[in-house]
Amino acid sequence: MRKNIFYAQSGGVTSVINASACGVIETARKNRDKIGKVFAGRNGIIGALTEDLIDTSKDSASAIAALRHTPSGAFGSCRYKLGNIEDNKVEFERLIEVFKAHNIGYFLYNGGGDSADTCLKVSQLSASMGFPIQAIHIPKTVDNDLPITDNCPGFGSVAKYIAVSTLEASLDVASMARTSTKVFVLEVMGRHAGWIAAAGALADTEEQPVPVIVLFPEVKFDPKRFLAEVKKKVEKFGYVSVVVSEGVRHEDGRFLAEAGSTDAFGHSQLGGAAPVVANMVKQEHGYKYHWAVADYLQRAARHVASKSDVEQAYAVGKAAVTMALAGKNAVMPAIKRTSNSPYRWKIEEAKLSKVANVEKMMPKSFITKDGFGITKKCRQYLEPLIKGEDYPPYKNGLPRYVRLKNIAVTKKLNNEFTLK
Amino acid sequence: MRKNIFYAQSGGVTSVINASACGVIETARKNRDKIGKVFAGRNGIIGALTEDLIDTSKDSASAIAALRHTPSGAFGSCRYKLGNIEDNKVEFERLIEVFKAHNIGYFLYNGGGDSADTCLKVSQLSASMGFPIQAIHIPKTVDNDLPITDNCPGFGSVAKYIAVSTLEASLDVASMARTSTKVFVLEVMGRHAGWIAAAGALADTEEQPVPVIVLFPEVKFDPKRFLAEVKKKVEKFGYVSVVVSEGVRHEDGRFLAEAGSTDAFGHSQLGGAAPVVANMVKQEHGYKYHWAVADYLQRAARHVASKSDVEQAYAVGKAAVTMALAGKNAVMPAIKRTSNSPYRWKIEEAKLSKVANVEKMMPKSFITKDGFGITKKCRQYLEPLIKGEDYPPYKNGLPRYVRLKNIAVTKKLNNEFTLK
Repeated sequence: MRKNIFYAQSGGVTSVINASACGVIETARKNRDKIGKVFAGRNGIIGALTEDLIDTSKDSASAIAALRHTPSGAFGSCRYKLGNIEDNKVEFERLIEVFKAHNIGYFLYNGGGDSADTCLKVSQLSASMGFPIQAIHIPKTVDNDLPITDNCPGFGSVAKYIAVSTLEASLDVASMARTSTKVFVLEVMGRHAGWIAAAGALADTEEQPVPVIVLFPEVKFDPKRFLAEVKKKVEKFGYVSVVVSEGVRHEDGRFLAEAGSTDAFGHSQLGGAAPVVANMVKQEHGYKYHWAVADYLQRAARHVASKSDVEQAYAVGKAAVTMALAGKNAVMPAIKRTSNSPYRWKIEEAKLSKVANVEKMMPKSFITKDGFGITKKCRQYLEPLIKGEDYPPYKNGLPRYVRLKNIAVTKKLNNEFTLK
Repeated sequence: MRKNIFYAQSGGVTSVINASACGVIETARKNRDKIGKVFAGRNGIIGALTEDLIDTSKDSASAIAALRHTPSGAFGSCRYKLGNIEDNKVEFERLIEVFKAHNIGYFLYNGGGDSADTCLKVSQLSASMGFPIQAIHIPKTVDNDLPITDNCPGFGSVAKYIAVSTLEASLDVASMARTSTKVFVLEVMGRHAGWIAAAGALADTEEQPVPVIVLFPEVKFDPKRFLAEVKKKVEKFGYVSVVVSEGVRHEDGRFLAEAGSTDAFGHSQLGGAAPVVANMVKQEHGYKYHWAVADYLQRAARHVASKSDVEQAYAVGKAAVTMALAGKNAVMPAIKRTSNSPYRWKIEEAKLSKVANVEKMMPKSFITKDGFGITKKCRQYLEPLIKGEDYPPYKNGLPRYVRLKNIAVTKKLNNEFTLK
């Protein structure tokens, strides 16, 4: 009897994770002779634990196709990490119980570093607990911090959003600088890795120079040197844009974002890194500033997605099913770059054991010596990832994003499971 | 001898003010038999006062055409308000001196409310100081607060950006809400008028409901009622998006954004309204939140401009030249809506005296009784304004925005002018 696929979305969502879901479901549908149905976990792995599965076969081909241009997680995601098997037998036994009840033979997990770890654990269920299942991890993270794969689906579109936004805001500041704003600060995501912040520097091209200072979490923040660099740029160009990563820390290890700010009620950590940096500039130089915090807007911005990114997100979803059909376990489809110009890439197989729990930071060779910019090598790496546009269809001025029916699979178990 | 046009951009720039510049220059070029050159003020009116004029005839037809898809102010803008004629004779005499020296007969001023006032004063120079000049105001403001005109060029594109971003971020939160973020807060511009905030509510459609709470500057902010509404929405939908205008105030008149926050150094006004609102929700309900401040990103976002807006911005620039040729003075091309569905509009002539120094707030009939949303009437007003896409061309993943040569007109005066 053909086995069903369990597919789930995990961790922070992206503007293209649904393109991976689209790749999984469409490829499975094309292989109906070998694969049963695709059951999606409602809210990620929680859907498996609570037997809350979504029958994706109830949605039409056109609805599934529309996932390709719909941001966020169509089945719901979650932040829920499975512990190790020894200490959390109850959870893993529950997974097996649910998978058995619904004839699931493939576990396709769409997420970042933490999720790769969960996926690796599930891949060991066969050896450790005698339940035959193939676990394949589908890479996704805007932070671009997974190892082995050249880049992570989700990152290219955020990078494009940040590059475009930095360019646009810089043109704005440039035209105001004579009598008003001289410094614009944009705070971006990326946790401990500066990949997203680096994308801000793409706004500065040979053809059209734009003064950009990047603050990377990988570089020790030195307020004095930073303020001197701001002054230098403002004196040369009349203005400057600063792209600061949420992960930048003071010398003592505190995040800039938690600079001890309190509001009238004494609540702390109101602000982000951007207002802290902007205020620093104002205090030192008196320059008028503006600041923005892109937050979820950046990772949800499907309207300005990168075409490369959408294609790769689809491709890793498709490859996961192909690998499942080929009997693979404990692997992840990884992107391998074969050429920079023209940009060419292919999908390769990565061992999940080498992916889980490893964070890929910006290499030193990607950051300029002064710590405020990107090298030519970094630019060559980043540029292809933001290439190409892939607009969603619009209706009445708004993108037509799909919402699936998300019809639940009838429960087969009579017991409830309490989440930890 | 044919008179030249002086054209200047004033106040905060928008993603389509250059489309108005394009309309002015292209129309003037088509009327070379009647009009001389278009001289642009470098950094707005300051360019006139300092005799720093840009000769737009030095830029090619294709460069001028590219203004249509380039955000920000191509000639530089400024925040500089001329005083009244009686008390600031020196400034007005200087304007006349510069205009005489460069044979300027038309003053085309592209800005918002303050600029309309400046333009009105210049229109009176003929009567008050005997210098023959026709002054025509070209409307522009993201705040959408000019009277008479149905809407202001620049607003439609910000509205589209905010509607699209609210929709995208809401889908993101919806997929995270089970175990993580339940409340997303987006801070938007608009000063004293809630027009931009209202656009956030467009994300909520009959076809695809999205729970959105809008906080308007026109509505007294009541924390208790707001927090109750947040709870109601979260309990019904699992999540909620809050769109808060920068202009929202506490009962005592202070802006939310200046809620007395201080950082470790005792500097005040670090945060914006968004973190204040988000923190309030966290304190009362314990919901996890995320917040974003769009700031300049919203008004510079030419990549997601509204087609209606681009067309209208061009049309008012074009109409200003047509009105100049027809001998008009102290007028503004205004947009008159003639039909909602299909959306139709035309350009009419408004008296500048009725435009200057009047702010158009959201009418009461546009805000729902509870103060947190928009009425059907408001939706009918807003929807056509965000209609249609008008993408810029891209190269290597980035929009190809033009930078003009901006070659200075040779100075004819030997005296320097000191700005106040």
